[in-house]
Amino acid sequence: MSVPAGQHTVRRHNLALVLGEVAGPEPLSRAGVAARTGLTRGTVSSLVEELIAAGLVTELAAARGGPGRPASPLRLDPRGPAGLGLEVGVDTVGACVVDLGGTVRVQRTAPSDHREDAPDAALGRLAALAADVVAEAGLPIAGATVALPGVVGPDGVLERAPNLPRWVDVAVGAALSTQLRGLPVRAGNEADLAALAERWAGGPADAVVVSGGIGVGAGILLDGALFAGAGGRAGEIGHVVVEPDGRTCHCGGRGCLETVAGLEALTGPDAVRAAGRALGIALTGAVHLLDVPAVVLGGGYPGVGPLLLDAVRAELAARAFSRAGVEVRYSALGADAALRGAATTVVQDVLADPGAVIGAQGQVRKERSASVSSPGTQ
Amino acid sequence: MSVPAGQHTVRRHNLALVLGEVAGPEPLSRAGVAARTGLTRGTVSSLVEELIAAGLVTELAAARGGPGRPASPLRLDPRGPAGLGLEVGVDTVGACVVDLGGTVRVQRTAPSDHREDAPDAALGRLAALAADVVAEAGLPIAGATVALPGVVGPDGVLERAPNLPRWVDVAVGAALSTQLRGLPVRAGNEADLAALAERWAGGPADAVVVSGGIGVGAGILLDGALFAGAGGRAGEIGHVVVEPDGRTCHCGGRGCLETVAGLEALTGPDAVRAAGRALGIALTGAVHLLDVPAVVLGGGYPGVGPLLLDAVRAELAARAFSRAGVEVRYSALGADAALRGAATTVVQDVLADPGAVIGAQGQVRKERSASVSSPGTQ
Repeated sequence: MSVPAGQHTVRRHNLALVLGEVAGPEPLSRAGVAARTGLTRGTVSSLVEELIAAGLVTELAAARGGPGRPASPLRLDPRGPAGLGLEVGVDTVGACVVDLGGTVRVQRTAPSDHREDAPDAALGRLAALAADVVAEAGLPIAGATVALPGVVGPDGVLERAPNLPRWVDVAVGAALSTQLRGLPVRAGNEADLAALAERWAGGPADAVVVSGGIGVGAGILLDGALFAGAGGRAGEIGHVVVEPDGRTCHCGGRGCLETVAGLEALTGPDAVRAAGRALGIALTGAVHLLDVPAVVLGGGYPGVGPLLLDAVRAELAARAFSRAGVEVRYSALGADAALRGAATTVVQDVLADPGAVIGAQGQVRKERSASVSSPGTQ
Repeated sequence: MSVPAGQHTVRRHNLALVLGEVAGPEPLSRAGVAARTGLTRGTVSSLVEELIAAGLVTELAAARGGPGRPASPLRLDPRGPAGLGLEVGVDTVGACVVDLGGTVRVQRTAPSDHREDAPDAALGRLAALAADVVAEAGLPIAGATVALPGVVGPDGVLERAPNLPRWVDVAVGAALSTQLRGLPVRAGNEADLAALAERWAGGPADAVVVSGGIGVGAGILLDGALFAGAGGRAGEIGHVVVEPDGRTCHCGGRGCLETVAGLEALTGPDAVRAAGRALGIALTGAVHLLDVPAVVLGGGYPGVGPLLLDAVRAELAARAFSRAGVEVRYSALGADAALRGAATTVVQDVLADPGAVIGAQGQVRKERSASVSSPGTQ
């Protein structure tokens, strides 16, 4: 039996509805939002005022221009709550701030080799970089997501990263949250976050998005959303076997895709052809198991050039029988797709449920006024 | 905004609720069903009468026995609408009838080699076998599902079957429906239906269920349901590449799992070890891409013996790094799992929505009475 939605739930739902319209491609006034949502103008105005007060929406000056242009267009407030993206690479750390409108406001990457090191020093460097980037952006930060080059379990713990042998079962999000004064920090696999970035940039709804770096991973998109598998670890294409008697992999296996197609293996045209063939073999398995119609090669792969892409296409054409004409293309995003994807997950969460942000702001105000009115309790 | 459910919708929902309780492991009386569902005794009695009239439920004589036993236990009517399972194998056809309580009432398999033949003759043989089996069972048939040894698209068309080269884009369900006087016939991949049978027999909720025959396929279970992939063709593990320079496969590829681990390749212990290794390599890919914790080997594999199972386990233990301790076991079901799974899908549909069956029966009654009252219109 369904229970009638409470006033509070309805208002929270409607806040998201209105913010979604403001975030759309077409500039809309309050009247335009009312027309598109079916809400009354009075309701829309009340909701818009709340979104403006929370710093999520701004109302531009009335345009005097051409016919049909809205009088006072609303837009996402670029000074509103922003997303902090963080990344632990194999030999880098990165941080960026993406504002509510999706614009990258500050982005920095620094060398930091983690192949031999334990996590503590690296996480300290990343937290310091994050603090710098946040200070430079000068925006309120709604939360952070950290992209990690390994297997992230359903609880957000980095379970294993083959190229980072000392990082085993590390609660990276919790550790960074402590260093960043309690800012909520979630963790995700870097290839998964790069795949989401690909989708948000207009990529295909159903695809295997391969992220080529020192390690190789993939994010699997089905119906526009990340496919998690049974436990959130899906998409570890770098450890699909492509040469059963091949080289030992850092994961402990043998002949994994990563041993042939990791960026550090791509020295010269023969290696590139071999990598393309190996990618095609592994992707044949992915197409047969997942029934996906498209493959996007991202991370460092687009920089390798057409030889790699041609080899992958030829291999898939010769081997994948269950789907004719699997589309294979390079990503148009750079190697920072995972970092930007990480920041954008935070922004997407704000847009999906602005009521949560407004509720948190209210809580902060209450706590502040309580501490002002009764300092003795501190 | 949610709309209140209409009386009709509520009654249909409640019919399924009551039938679900009757189908449960514990024998329940009308009072027992009322207690478990929260419906009034009057409502339950009215729904039970409707289910009895439709031939779905039967009420046993009041038990005089021990304390706590229900007075007049309800159970699924074994004379009620049954499911017809059909199968086109590579060199067999099969048909079986499973009653509402899940018991196989009649089952027959006949040799019928389809490797060289076009579909027409084979489908004629299968339809004749189906008619025999239905006549022998003497039960009303709610519908049929046909298991096919190839790629079945989202519209139920057999798109390709590597071992049946002349079966390309065949609407098998529609063809059989015509031959079976309009009985609804759906089509599914044989490995998918075998995986569902495995689940209904108490198997794991998250698993790759491999079906070993002349061809090799898999059904992927996630959260207890079949994983379809982007277009319904997921699970074609037989064409995952395990020997990049291996033998040419019927699919046109090279070194597919099926070329090494299809049952016809298993001649002698060396071949069994090679097949186990190949299965382990392909399953390593599946575990890494899908993050599944369990593998069930079914079809003809359990008959091969422990050598195969040990080889698969050893290979997975050495190669699958993202999940420790993937469970690998043989299926306890026989090689007819797909056939029984096909019949059981029909029974499951009846149990999930008995209102649809009752509605169809009402429609038949209306048509019959119309034809009796105005014979001139025929």
